[in-house]
Amino acid sequence: MRELTLELDVNNKIPLYEQIYEHIRNEIKAGNISCNTKLPSTRNLAAHLDVSRSTVDMAYAQLVSEGYIEARPYKGYYASEISLLYDIHQEDRDLPHGEEESKEDDTIDFSPFGIELDSFPFNTWRKLSKNLLSADNKELFASCHYKGAPKLRQTICHYLYEARGVRCTPKQIILGAGNEYLLMLLNSLFEEKLPIAMENPTYANAYNVFRRNGNDIIPISVDKSGMVVEELCASKAELAYVMPSHQFPLGIVMPIKRRLALLNWACKKEGRYIIEDDYDSEFRYVGKPMPALQGVDDGNHVIYMGTFSKSIAPSIRMSYMVLPHSLMKCLSSQKQMYSQTVSKMDQMIVNDFIQEGYFERHLNKMRSIYRAKHDFIMAKLKECSGKLSVSGENSGLHILLTVDSPLTEEKLIQRALKAGVKVHGVSGYYILDSGNQNSAMPCSGQTLWNTHPTFLIGFASLSIAQIEEGIEKLRIAWKL
Amino acid sequence: MRELTLELDVNNKIPLYEQIYEHIRNEIKAGNISCNTKLPSTRNLAAHLDVSRSTVDMAYAQLVSEGYIEARPYKGYYASEISLLYDIHQEDRDLPHGEEESKEDDTIDFSPFGIELDSFPFNTWRKLSKNLLSADNKELFASCHYKGAPKLRQTICHYLYEARGVRCTPKQIILGAGNEYLLMLLNSLFEEKLPIAMENPTYANAYNVFRRNGNDIIPISVDKSGMVVEELCASKAELAYVMPSHQFPLGIVMPIKRRLALLNWACKKEGRYIIEDDYDSEFRYVGKPMPALQGVDDGNHVIYMGTFSKSIAPSIRMSYMVLPHSLMKCLSSQKQMYSQTVSKMDQMIVNDFIQEGYFERHLNKMRSIYRAKHDFIMAKLKECSGKLSVSGENSGLHILLTVDSPLTEEKLIQRALKAGVKVHGVSGYYILDSGNQNSAMPCSGQTLWNTHPTFLIGFASLSIAQIEEGIEKLRIAWKL
Repeated sequence: MRELTLELDVNNKIPLYEQIYEHIRNEIKAGNISCNTKLPSTRNLAAHLDVSRSTVDMAYAQLVSEGYIEARPYKGYYASEISLLYDIHQEDRDLPHGEEESKEDDTIDFSPFGIELDSFPFNTWRKLSKNLLSADNKELFASCHYKGAPKLRQTICHYLYEARGVRCTPKQIILGAGNEYLLMLLNSLFEEKLPIAMENPTYANAYNVFRRNGNDIIPISVDKSGMVVEELCASKAELAYVMPSHQFPLGIVMPIKRRLALLNWACKKEGRYIIEDDYDSEFRYVGKPMPALQGVDDGNHVIYMGTFSKSIAPSIRMSYMVLPHSLMKCLSSQKQMYSQTVSKMDQMIVNDFIQEGYFERHLNKMRSIYRAKHDFIMAKLKECSGKLSVSGENSGLHILLTVDSPLTEEKLIQRALKAGVKVHGVSGYYILDSGNQNSAMPCSGQTLWNTHPTFLIGFASLSIAQIEEGIEKLRIAWKL
Repeated sequence: MRELTLELDVNNKIPLYEQIYEHIRNEIKAGNISCNTKLPSTRNLAAHLDVSRSTVDMAYAQLVSEGYIEARPYKGYYASEISLLYDIHQEDRDLPHGEEESKEDDTIDFSPFGIELDSFPFNTWRKLSKNLLSADNKELFASCHYKGAPKLRQTICHYLYEARGVRCTPKQIILGAGNEYLLMLLNSLFEEKLPIAMENPTYANAYNVFRRNGNDIIPISVDKSGMVVEELCASKAELAYVMPSHQFPLGIVMPIKRRLALLNWACKKEGRYIIEDDYDSEFRYVGKPMPALQGVDDGNHVIYMGTFSKSIAPSIRMSYMVLPHSLMKCLSSQKQMYSQTVSKMDQMIVNDFIQEGYFERHLNKMRSIYRAKHDFIMAKLKECSGKLSVSGENSGLHILLTVDSPLTEEKLIQRALKAGVKVHGVSGYYILDSGNQNSAMPCSGQTLWNTHPTFLIGFASLSIAQIEEGIEKLRIAWKL
């Protein structure tokens, strides 16, 4: 048993229990409290430090849960074997403590999921939220319609018509806290678990939701026009999840002919649906954006999904889905299960943000910022040798980079990381046939991205200087 | 074909398409445009009104979807058979338009789901959100940790320990946009669909989530101490969903002996879990609140759930779940599927609300407001004849009222409604054995609430005057 030489700082913002926790953790890590040393009882330590016993209890509970100390029945608390700790902590990346520390890393991360937040319209947001809160607006905190606030659904309806050619009424729109949630909700509208076709490679989160739900997943090859519809027609799929505006991860924009073929597949048999995920269509840098597939349909075969995660911010957790009439009936028969998941305050702020014209201005601003980054990265890559080829450009927040190298994708990722640059390989987005888990990766048609190491290069959250430095480091690391 | 005598008001806040929609809808409802009358083409009407064609398109699309007009291929739009419309609209309660109108109803609704919003701390909320937004706080809009912001989880951890005796670390806490979402998430952590025991009657939304998920649901009788553990032990259940602090709908507080028996059931076999839904334990009017079941457990058998829906407001969509260590591993292996669903801005406001002491003051204030309403309703009911008996009092936001009447529950509800009072019968919360859908309602042990018409009387959202008027009307309608 050891005396603890800890002094608590009651004026510190860090809670007392955490100060105790940190002190003991550090003493154990430093070897000052060695393995199998008995710790003071919670009662004694509480008396010694002049704090409540519950404060010490919490500190000990946290230390136990993280494996630093262990509770031995009828004996007390003992420091654990320190050599075993490293592995535990490698696994436990999601520790609140671990998290905060990891932010200091200065690796340049070409993540395809970031957005730029330096240009977030803080002043407008503050003004709109202040206005909403100033009127003692009780409605703002009352329960919300299960599909979302009618006013916002009307606003989104209008926006989708104007911006994306989506044809619907507000009652077909349902808001949800993120695409994954909406896909979970969508799954529960089908009585059976329908076999679903997905582009291969595809968006991993959507794949995981369907896999977890128990759907048969049928990977469909992708050529330069997108999902290969002949393959879809030959499959037993009843649903197809596609991203025609900007396929993730490949960045392909599906031309109109392929879109019509896709719709034609859906119309051939009752109960077939296309799930159109239109996740980043706001950002197109060349030419006019192509309207959504939903607008070409007769309103019965396309489930349209969109999000404000890219166009406003991921943290407001606001996505929406436009349901065909047939599925709306299923939804309203189950509405008691689906309380609305989006904060009403955020809904009303976004409503005013769009209605008062701020959203349009914000999109124009962000489009020009992202275009500048996009154009810069394209120019930088052109300066590199002929060993690179770029695809999926002119739209969205990432491009696809294929490298002519004898090294594997994994090896190239490691070299880049060593040089301080994080790149994301496309191979992580390939999916397996769930009906035939042992089958080889389906690769009909040879395309660059399935024969050569290929990477998603996201540019939204990086500054021009970081992009320049990142590409320069890649060029050296990869000897381009 | 008819000329439309519509004048648009471009200065009106109502969008133009909606003005057109409303005009035509009203003309059809009034009989001024009769059935089978051809409407002007969208092109002609757009030219006539000097608006864009898309505006007219949207108005027509809405009219079509609501059944007022129909599109005939190669011919145009025609007014529909008006007599058929009533039924359509009765079904379509969730229409944005329908909704706004229904607010004017002055029925006194003793809903058990309302909360009082007159005392919502608007000034504090405004101040906290302003402070958060004023620092151009980029973090506020960046992606959130999948379990929720570490800071808020730490704050909740501390609060739960202090207020409810819940023992956990911040990393065991996961936030989610509502209890239904968290239950969906919880379901996906189990490899198999485990048979689940639920109190009968129980919380309907939870029942629906499990039923939809495909769990075998085993209804367990409830006596005056809550779930009958002998019945649970004799069943094949591996999970038990219980509300020991204040059972919904019956209002029972489970005494410690029964709690220990329940925990004993869970400890007897590996992989058994109790889901403790602690939805309204903040409000207890007599004596000290009983600590949560979770705090009595060794940390391995209880999944604790709580929410800010009752204690702050339902619209902020913030619930939380405390997972035992065994289930945390399942969660972190699937974290890519579960982006956090709660708005980060709301998370940070709630964090500051709790940390700066506002939450405690707000709870004290609301407790005294609700206590006054609770005491008032109890006093009013005492004045009634001996034909009433009250249970589930002294806690939460509703009581249970059992009536000694020859009339059925349904008949009593109808009479009340005629008199302008809405009451909610307990029978809607009884559940069926999913393994044996044809079995009669299980009713082992005769209790008042399963032999006599019984109602949930929620008082939170009503004023004292409304409560008085409502009880008076019930007394007359039910001849008490």
